[in-house]
Amino acid sequence: MKRTLGTCYYPEHWPEEIWEADARRMADAGLTWVRIGEFAWSRLEPTQGNLQFDWLDRAIEVLGKAGLKVVLGTPTATPPHWMVEKHPDMLAVDVNGHPRKFGSRRHYCFSHEGFQLESDRIVQLLAERYGDSPYIAAWQTDNEYGCHDTVLSYSNAAKKAFGLWLARRYGSIEALNRAWGNVFWSMEYASFDSIDLPNLTVTEPNPSHSLAFRRFSSDQVVAFNKRQVDIIRRYSGAPISHNFMGRITEFDHFKVSDDLDIATWDSYPLGFLEDRVGATSEHQRLYARQGDPDFQAFHHDLYRAAGNGRWWVMEQQPGPVNWAPYNPAPLSGMMRLWAWEAYAHGAEAVCYFRWRQAPFAQEQMHAGMLRPDNADAPALIEARQVRDELHDAPDVETSPAPVALIFDYDADFAWATQPHGAGLSYFQLVFEAYKALRSLGLSVDILRGETRDFSGYQIVAAPGLIYMSQDLKKALAESNAEVVLGPRTAARNADMVIPVPLPPDMPGLEVTVARVESMRPDMPMPLKGGGNLVSYREELEGAAGTFLELEDGQIAAMRQDNLTYVGGWCDGLAWKRVFKMLCDEAGIETFDLSGGVRCRDAGNIRIWTNYGASPSDTPAGRIDAAGVLFERL
Amino acid sequence: MKRTLGTCYYPEHWPEEIWEADARRMADAGLTWVRIGEFAWSRLEPTQGNLQFDWLDRAIEVLGKAGLKVVLGTPTATPPHWMVEKHPDMLAVDVNGHPRKFGSRRHYCFSHEGFQLESDRIVQLLAERYGDSPYIAAWQTDNEYGCHDTVLSYSNAAKKAFGLWLARRYGSIEALNRAWGNVFWSMEYASFDSIDLPNLTVTEPNPSHSLAFRRFSSDQVVAFNKRQVDIIRRYSGAPISHNFMGRITEFDHFKVSDDLDIATWDSYPLGFLEDRVGATSEHQRLYARQGDPDFQAFHHDLYRAAGNGRWWVMEQQPGPVNWAPYNPAPLSGMMRLWAWEAYAHGAEAVCYFRWRQAPFAQEQMHAGMLRPDNADAPALIEARQVRDELHDAPDVETSPAPVALIFDYDADFAWATQPHGAGLSYFQLVFEAYKALRSLGLSVDILRGETRDFSGYQIVAAPGLIYMSQDLKKALAESNAEVVLGPRTAARNADMVIPVPLPPDMPGLEVTVARVESMRPDMPMPLKGGGNLVSYREELEGAAGTFLELEDGQIAAMRQDNLTYVGGWCDGLAWKRVFKMLCDEAGIETFDLSGGVRCRDAGNIRIWTNYGASPSDTPAGRIDAAGVLFERL
Amino acid sequence: MKRTLGTCYYPEHWPEEIWEADARRMADAGLTWVRIGEFAWSRLEPTQGNLQFDWLDRAIEVLGKAGLKVVLGTPTATPPHWMVEKHPDMLAVDVNGHPRKFGSRRHYCFSHEGFQLESDRIVQLLAERYGDSPYIAAWQTDNEYGCHDTVLSYSNAAKKAFGLWLARRYGSIEALNRAWGNVFWSMEYASFDSIDLPNLTVTEPNPSHSLAFRRFSSDQVVAFNKRQVDIIRRYSGAPISHNFMGRITEFDHFKVSDDLDIATWDSYPLGFLEDRVGATSEHQRLYARQGDPDFQAFHHDLYRAAGNGRWWVMEQQPGPVNWAPYNPAPLSGMMRLWAWEAYAHGAEAVCYFRWRQAPFAQEQMHAGMLRPDNADAPALIEARQVRDELHDAPDVETSPAPVALIFDYDADFAWATQPHGAGLSYFQLVFEAYKALRSLGLSVDILRGETRDFSGYQIVAAPGLIYMSQDLKKALAESNAEVVLGPRTAARNADMVIPVPLPPDMPGLEVTVARVESMRPDMPMPLKGGGNLVSYREELEGAAGTFLELEDGQIAAMRQDNLTYVGGWCDGLAWKRVFKMLCDEAGIETFDLSGGVRCRDAGNIRIWTNYGASPSDTPAGRIDAAGVLFERL
Ligand SMILES: [Zn+2]
Ligand SMILES: [Zn+2]
Ligand SMILES: [Zn+2]
Repeated sequence: MKRTLGTCYYPEHWPEEIWEADARRMADAGLTWVRIGEFAWSRLEPTQGNLQFDWLDRAIEVLGKAGLKVVLGTPTATPPHWMVEKHPDMLAVDVNGHPRKFGSRRHYCFSHEGFQLESDRIVQLLAERYGDSPYIAAWQTDNEYGCHDTVLSYSNAAKKAFGLWLARRYGSIEALNRAWGNVFWSMEYASFDSIDLPNLTVTEPNPSHSLAFRRFSSDQVVAFNKRQVDIIRRYSGAPISHNFMGRITEFDHFKVSDDLDIATWDSYPLGFLEDRVGATSEHQRLYARQGDPDFQAFHHDLYRAAGNGRWWVMEQQPGPVNWAPYNPAPLSGMMRLWAWEAYAHGAEAVCYFRWRQAPFAQEQMHAGMLRPDNADAPALIEARQVRDELHDAPDVETSPAPVALIFDYDADFAWATQPHGAGLSYFQLVFEAYKALRSLGLSVDILRGETRDFSGYQIVAAPGLIYMSQDLKKALAESNAEVVLGPRTAARNADMVIPVPLPPDMPGLEVTVARVESMRPDMPMPLKGGGNLVSYREELEGAAGTFLELEDGQIAAMRQDNLTYVGGWCDGLAWKRVFKMLCDEAGIETFDLSGGVRCRDAGNIRIWTNYGASPSDTPAGRIDAAGVLFERL
Repeated sequence: MKRTLGTCYYPEHWPEEIWEADARRMADAGLTWVRIGEFAWSRLEPTQGNLQFDWLDRAIEVLGKAGLKVVLGTPTATPPHWMVEKHPDMLAVDVNGHPRKFGSRRHYCFSHEGFQLESDRIVQLLAERYGDSPYIAAWQTDNEYGCHDTVLSYSNAAKKAFGLWLARRYGSIEALNRAWGNVFWSMEYASFDSIDLPNLTVTEPNPSHSLAFRRFSSDQVVAFNKRQVDIIRRYSGAPISHNFMGRITEFDHFKVSDDLDIATWDSYPLGFLEDRVGATSEHQRLYARQGDPDFQAFHHDLYRAAGNGRWWVMEQQPGPVNWAPYNPAPLSGMMRLWAWEAYAHGAEAVCYFRWRQAPFAQEQMHAGMLRPDNADAPALIEARQVRDELHDAPDVETSPAPVALIFDYDADFAWATQPHGAGLSYFQLVFEAYKALRSLGLSVDILRGETRDFSGYQIVAAPGLIYMSQDLKKALAESNAEVVLGPRTAARNADMVIPVPLPPDMPGLEVTVARVESMRPDMPMPLKGGGNLVSYREELEGAAGTFLELEDGQIAAMRQDNLTYVGGWCDGLAWKRVFKMLCDEAGIETFDLSGGVRCRDAGNIRIWTNYGASPSDTPAGRIDAAGVLFERL
Repeated sequence: MKRTLGTCYYPEHWPEEIWEADARRMADAGLTWVRIGEFAWSRLEPTQGNLQFDWLDRAIEVLGKAGLKVVLGTPTATPPHWMVEKHPDMLAVDVNGHPRKFGSRRHYCFSHEGFQLESDRIVQLLAERYGDSPYIAAWQTDNEYGCHDTVLSYSNAAKKAFGLWLARRYGSIEALNRAWGNVFWSMEYASFDSIDLPNLTVTEPNPSHSLAFRRFSSDQVVAFNKRQVDIIRRYSGAPISHNFMGRITEFDHFKVSDDLDIATWDSYPLGFLEDRVGATSEHQRLYARQGDPDFQAFHHDLYRAAGNGRWWVMEQQPGPVNWAPYNPAPLSGMMRLWAWEAYAHGAEAVCYFRWRQAPFAQEQMHAGMLRPDNADAPALIEARQVRDELHDAPDVETSPAPVALIFDYDADFAWATQPHGAGLSYFQLVFEAYKALRSLGLSVDILRGETRDFSGYQIVAAPGLIYMSQDLKKALAESNAEVVLGPRTAARNADMVIPVPLPPDMPGLEVTVARVESMRPDMPMPLKGGGNLVSYREELEGAAGTFLELEDGQIAAMRQDNLTYVGGWCDGLAWKRVFKMLCDEAGIETFDLSGGVRCRDAGNIRIWTNYGASPSDTPAGRIDAAGVLFERL
């Protein structure tokens, strides 16, 4: 399969007269894919039952006849106003109990049955009509589930659905009360339908309650998506995708992807650096026009796993965006670099969002491949360069990675429920481990928490898996890989209760976490030999050997056979040292990449990228600022 | 007309026995004006329909007979409790949907029809009774419209009125949907009465929607004020004023002033420096006891424009206030200096707020001219000095200014709707340009956005006018002045949509803004020759000449004939350089005023003020800390 | 009476089979007291009227038979879910108008009559059943009144009760309107039942209104507690206590204690340093594992006063807690040190919270004396050391202190109502004076504001008493002690109105506060000789002598005979200098304790403690980090 380019297009935004010229220009630019339709519900059904699909028929035909492959989106992220008037209680409710009103997008609660039926209906209509269209080459369900904090809803619909979900999970209310320890503070419930949602409590709710609500909320997204997929499949053989959004961790992207054929994500390197990477101000300044060197790569690896190898960038930042606190323009070359970073990680397609900058509404300051006045914007120019480079480039491919890193949404729910120290999050923990691996020049596979077969990997890192089933423990212990565990590994049972024997209670690893503490971030705990534990630390006991020591003589990490347990939150250098030592033992080649230079192997090519604002030297030669270098291995 | 002094007095706060002594003491202190009545509704009408005007008759008589001129305020800023019980839905509603309760002041929604009628009624009663009183020399409507964030109300009354306002503006719902680009995200409405207010949306609302709501809200203030004015005029020939509050930009003060005879404002230099000037901590420390050297001057020039030349300081800070985060005492001399700053800018009157410090209620820690124990407070002592200085001083006068600066409330609404970079505001942009002009020793006229005749000015600065009508573009281009435009000039059409051709699309200026970006404030972009663009920058194209360049070689400002376009947010030094270059060309004399020294020409006198805490040298001689120097020109 | 140890135990959390082993292990560890029952309502009454006391009977018997004395808590801090279903309006309402839901604890409004009756009922049932049990040696009412900000409730129940409370206080609505100055801003009410609660007002409410609401809210806590006490006393002769929480100042702990026999408090040195001491980051780092050296001592002195000499630590931090932003583990030795600090201040008992760490629910990360796996936790090991040390130690005793410090909850209400400068609080003011006294090595008695007999004290410090009755003024002026007053002494009358003559209007002290100001905290005002006034300053006039001067020549403090008035907010050094000068004159020996070393006299023993992380020298010899030193006097 060839690596491809694409874009997102909104025929309903433009006069029909220019559709054809637009389509021709897309094709000329070397684009293969055009995604349409995902916000058009008010044009498909302006008033209830008044269906207007003709314009979409024509748009698909114009695009298809120009040789473009259409990705058709379901429009459920933007229910029309008449629907909200019909179902006023379909709105999600925020944590303070305020309905989240019509007037932007994603104004629905996943648990509202009336809206679920509306969603079924419009998806059915689209699938019936376009299921066998020769131009529809793929589908997209909804748009960016969870964006704008839309997974957790405190509505009555959610309360009712949560009660049913709990009943299914626990069977009896006594079982729930026992599992959650509701005897504590007399929080026992008499029935499933009397269970409140865990918001507006006087002090924090029971973490078992909060975690259950997060799991339920995630499952609601999965179920909502599955309804759409099931309907589409009845009418179409084209692959189905969803465009996930960066660092949205409130629902399980793996489980949603299980029902899809392709996982896609929306990659906005500069916007993300400003609003969600979690970097220091200095790092934000340094990479303001380039984006974090690892954040996109992490998501690429994540969605390659979610899509079982099939993944795209459905939306690629094309210039300044509108939605971050600050919205700089990319350094010239970055829009090419970002595409190559995606291909390096196995992307089938990179689609720039959007074709032409819309002069109106919320995203009027979001760049496109064209300016509002139809002139070429920088993204179009760089896309053309990628088109030319793709011409003789190999097909989609990835290389087997020596290192695996487990990312588990359920663990993120648990950390979000109970960070223990202010500001700590599972995503950040895993991402910092990933950054360390990548700054050693390593290619990494991300694995979901359900993985049991680790063959082929020399190192498996599984930091922060706060709950770990017995069979995962066994699979890791028995694998041939060096396994990196901790902190907080298996620190809770499936209901967010501390297990006895105390964690990690790992077969083959004589380590016990005797006590944990969280510290102010300005109190780093230095390690002998460099690096620090910060913010969080565990007191380790047991017969395993000492692997790392703090300067005060306390144990920071222990090791026994193939199992290494890290008893705290490592800073970048600490992670790097841990992985370097294990790589050296395993005979894995590493580099010491500083600044913004990174590499990723794809087939027999190592693709070097430079996120730095000045040229740099790599083992494969000099690389420009914002440059890409192809090294044949 | 002589320059005068005055104060604000609340006879209802004090035993009737002391009114006469108070009045005598005011007259002795040289005060001409006494404002009364604006919070007295519960004493004028303790229960519904139970009118008690006798005490006010007597108060007016006592004050008038002492030789004082009375400014009578309408009491609508403080509706009594019985009225809120009668109209519970008259309360404004905050952005979170919470009613803003009784218990302080300004607890009404401008759109509530019941309250509008109550307002008509009490104003009618006052106007009828005192319209021909010999002692009533002026009126004040309400008090500080917009103070405490009271312009934007998300009530049902506002929703209904907004629908009607939109229907008048757009005629058909299709026109509105088209103008706003509601097709984006399926935000199309079926009717005007179904349009929600733009709060509590899942993500940001459509900027066209937000801007319309801001314009509507401003118009509601204008209409409310006009109802009062129309009633008063039927009974009285005395001039009518309103006391605007510093840096309140949620409604159009020019439009409100169009219905008034005199614009007045409430000047609290120290309170403002703490809570709204937007200065750095260092600047706040430096001027903690003196106030910002330019903030009052800016407002003086603003209200001279709003009042068509007739303007007062209705409330002058007399000592520490109660409402800022920190409330320091003024440096000795500042209460005199502030008065002279006002006269320098053409004030007819300066009234200290308030006569005697109230020992009770919300403002008990707000100083007065008298202490609560009746002793002279510093403000009274400094007022007496001003009285003596006024004795031989010229009449009210101003000098023609060589420089005009446009300030447009509608532009502020648009920037507030879409700052694009976190923390950017139109007021701050214009104010920083003003500070630069004033630190060059220039006298400035502020002009409203509706101005079309710029004759007499050598420089016209119009930064940040995000919408610009064709006739304003033409008037500026054809004026004889050096015109300074940008950033964001004409960046949107009247409905907050990006126009094509791209901005500024200015006749006679071949400049196009190809792209814009906002940057973290800690990433200044240095200009060749000094100064920086900060936070916001535009990429300029076109045939006009380069006027300023960034150190990285990019264009920062362009110029063609009399039009200069600045493509970014200038820091103080950058603004100063732009204006200095244009002044030098135009042959306008400038000074380089550093620290707290400033000057303003009034007739043939240049009035120097020193906001510094130590003496300083000026071209006119040495000036004390907190000093005033009169230089005959 | 011997000094004793104890713990908190939750039999309902554990299988009945292990109760006996637990009890034996407690007794073996030298524990005397075991507190139980305070969160067990849902187990005592799983559904309405379904009483299940058998398990409690058995638990008490098991514990009692093991030789432990039981403190029985009433379970009213945790009403079961069925009760909230029965009385949905029993929930407190937060300042934004949101009900504070079931799901944690303290989910009730003190003013709700239905809940008050439920409380009466369960307390009656417990008192009847266990009033003459030989094992019940003390009672505890409820748990941590006010924790999680639960004193102020803006419910309808509170509104109704507040109206009645005001009617009792003021007699007529005219009197209230007059006392509050409601004429200001037309805030006059027509009847008591029309008075709103002071939340959600457009700008700040009348401070008289806010202060009255705070006093009312405090009285509601007092009344609620008294109902429980009155019922228990009818059935039991055992002493009754309540466990107050650190730095909760929203209700009057003295008044609640008036109805109790023993005051107890819950001491969490590390949690408090992170979330409520108000220390700088540097201080937080320095004492992260030890706690502030003075915060516990202050509360010990406070509750010794509240309990009329009889006081306990009911909950002593045993290791890391779960609820602070950061939760470090204590330095080894601190759990012993904290106990000795308490005994030094006259504690009868120190009870570690809790016996065994609960693996489930909100406090699963809160350490206990046992780990969840039943292993000894460090607290148990240090408790055993204390047990051994207590063996030959003297009985409970305190030494007469030369210095008294007044702490008055009503003054805290007034400062909270009107801090005047951002961030200023009465608690902080008094605590900083206390820290200065303690760093001089002085033992201090805290006195309540109602104290009139100051005999025996050489120094009485009464900072910040914003209201001061005539008889307190007289008592202080006529005392034999050096009295330290200011800032804000007697600055308001009983209704929060500025009195005339101006404050402090103190007999025998010719000082008048002419004007006050608050300053940014980054603008310290240096004193001649060292130290600063910060944040708040008064201009002092009068014939009294100058005691301290600012470097700019203004008066900072004045003195006349035994009365010293400090006209501003002193930093630590300034307080230390004031007290040192008065001690030197009075011939009181002082030390200059720097770092974390402190001392307290108990009988004829001076107990030295070292909160520092390294050893230190004291006048009594070298003291280890986290060490305790006993010096015979
Ligand atoms: Zn005012
Ligand atoms: Zn709310
Ligand atoms: Zn507690």
